[in-house]
Amino acid sequence: MAKVYTESIGRLMELLSHMPGVGEKTAERLAYHILRLSRQEALALADAIREVKEKVKQCSICYQFAETDPCAVCSDPRRDRSTICVVEEAKDAVAIEQSGGYRGLYHVLCGRLAPLEGMEPEDLTLEGLMRRAGSDEVDEVILATNADMEGEATALYVREALEGLPVKMTRLARGIPSGSQLEYANAAVLAEALEGRTEMDRGRRADTEGRATRQ
Amino acid sequence: MAKVYTESIGRLMELLSHMPGVGEKTAERLAYHILRLSRQEALALADAIREVKEKVKQCSICYQFAETDPCAVCSDPRRDRSTICVVEEAKDAVAIEQSGGYRGLYHVLCGRLAPLEGMEPEDLTLEGLMRRAGSDEVDEVILATNADMEGEATALYVREALEGLPVKMTRLARGIPSGSQLEYANAAVLAEALEGRTEMDRGRRADTEGRATRQ
Repeated sequence: MAKVYTESIGRLMELLSHMPGVGEKTAERLAYHILRLSRQEALALADAIREVKEKVKQCSICYQFAETDPCAVCSDPRRDRSTICVVEEAKDAVAIEQSGGYRGLYHVLCGRLAPLEGMEPEDLTLEGLMRRAGSDEVDEVILATNADMEGEATALYVREALEGLPVKMTRLARGIPSGSQLEYANAAVLAEALEGRTEMDRGRRADTEGRATRQ
Repeated sequence: MAKVYTESIGRLMELLSHMPGVGEKTAERLAYHILRLSRQEALALADAIREVKEKVKQCSICYQFAETDPCAVCSDPRRDRSTICVVEEAKDAVAIEQSGGYRGLYHVLCGRLAPLEGMEPEDLTLEGLMRRAGSDEVDEVILATNADMEGEATALYVREALEGLPVKMTRLARGIPSGSQLEYANAAVLAEALEGRTEMDRGRRADTEGRATRQ
C-alpha cells in the first residue's frame, strides 16, 4: 500500500477506512474524491470536522450532542418536562424529533447492552437517567430503544433499574410500519401487529390517540 | 434540518453528503461517527485531509497524484520507458500498479469522454499524451480505459488523436475475468471471450505470454 499510494494519501485512506460502512475500496474512492476537490472545498471539509469537535459537546442532562449546555431541547421551556424518551444513540433522538410527534425530553443512553461487544450497563448513561426519572416533575419514561435483540435487552435492563420509581414506563408500539404493504412484512412483524391489534371505536376510525391510550 | 441538528453538525453532514456514494443517511452516520471519535482521532482526520491537499500535486508528466514532481513512477530509472499505459483516472493506474503485471509508464487522462456530463476532449490531458507518445523512446501506448461505453469512446478518440504517430496502440484484453465461473458471466462477456479466444500451444498450457503476443 505504501508503495502504490503516497504517504499522505495512504494515511487519509487509513483514517477514512475506520469510519462505519467504509471499507478499503470506499476509502480509496473517498480519498481520490478529496484529491479532486478544490483546495477550498477540501479545507472546508477539514475545518468542518475540526469545528464539530470544538463546538459540539454532550448535553450534561440528556447526553445529546449540542453546541450549548443544556442542549436546545433541555433548555426549551415549551417542552413537556413530564416525559423522557430514552434512546440508544443521539441520532435516534434526531429521528424521533424529525417525526414531529414528540414534545417531551430525551435521554441518550450512548449505547446499548451488548456484552459480546464489551458494552456493559456501566457504559450507559443510566445513572443520570435514574436521577432524572426520580424527579417529581417526571411522569413517564418512554423506552425507545431499537426493536432488535440488544434493544430489547437494554429496555428490560433500564426498566429494572427504574423499578420502584413512581413513573409510568412505556415502549414504542410494535406493528406494521405506516405506508407499508402487508405482503412484504415478515412473519415476526405481522405476529406483533396481530398481537397488539387495537379496537376500532364505532363511528370513527381507529386513530393514533386510541392506540396511545392502550399503552 | 437546521432545527434538529446543530449548525456545525449540519454543515459537516452537508459537506460529507457531497462525497461520491454518500447520501443524506450515510452523511448522518459518518457525522455521528466523527462526533463519537476522540478529539485526537477527529483532528487526525481533519489534518490528513488538509495535508493531502497541501502535499499532493499532480505529476506534470503523467498527471498521477504524487508528492514529488515528476512522480515516483515517472522518475524511476528502472521503469520501461517505451510503454505508456493510458487510464481514465489516477486510481485506475493504482489498480494496474497493484496487479504487479506492468513495468512501463502511465498517463492519466483525468476523465473520459462523456458529452452529456460535460466532459469534452479538451477536458482530458490529451495534449500531454500526444507530446509524450511522439517521443522517440515510446514504442507502445496501451489504452486501458474502462470496458464500458464511455471508456470505449474515449479509447477510440485517443487512438484517432495519436493516429500517424509511429507507436503501436493496444487495448487491454477482453474476456472472462480470472477466477470467475462461466455460469455467472453475462452474455456480452462470454461473447467477447469467445471472439477473442486464443490458440493453445501443443504440449503446454495457453499462458499469458501466448495471449500478450496475440495483441
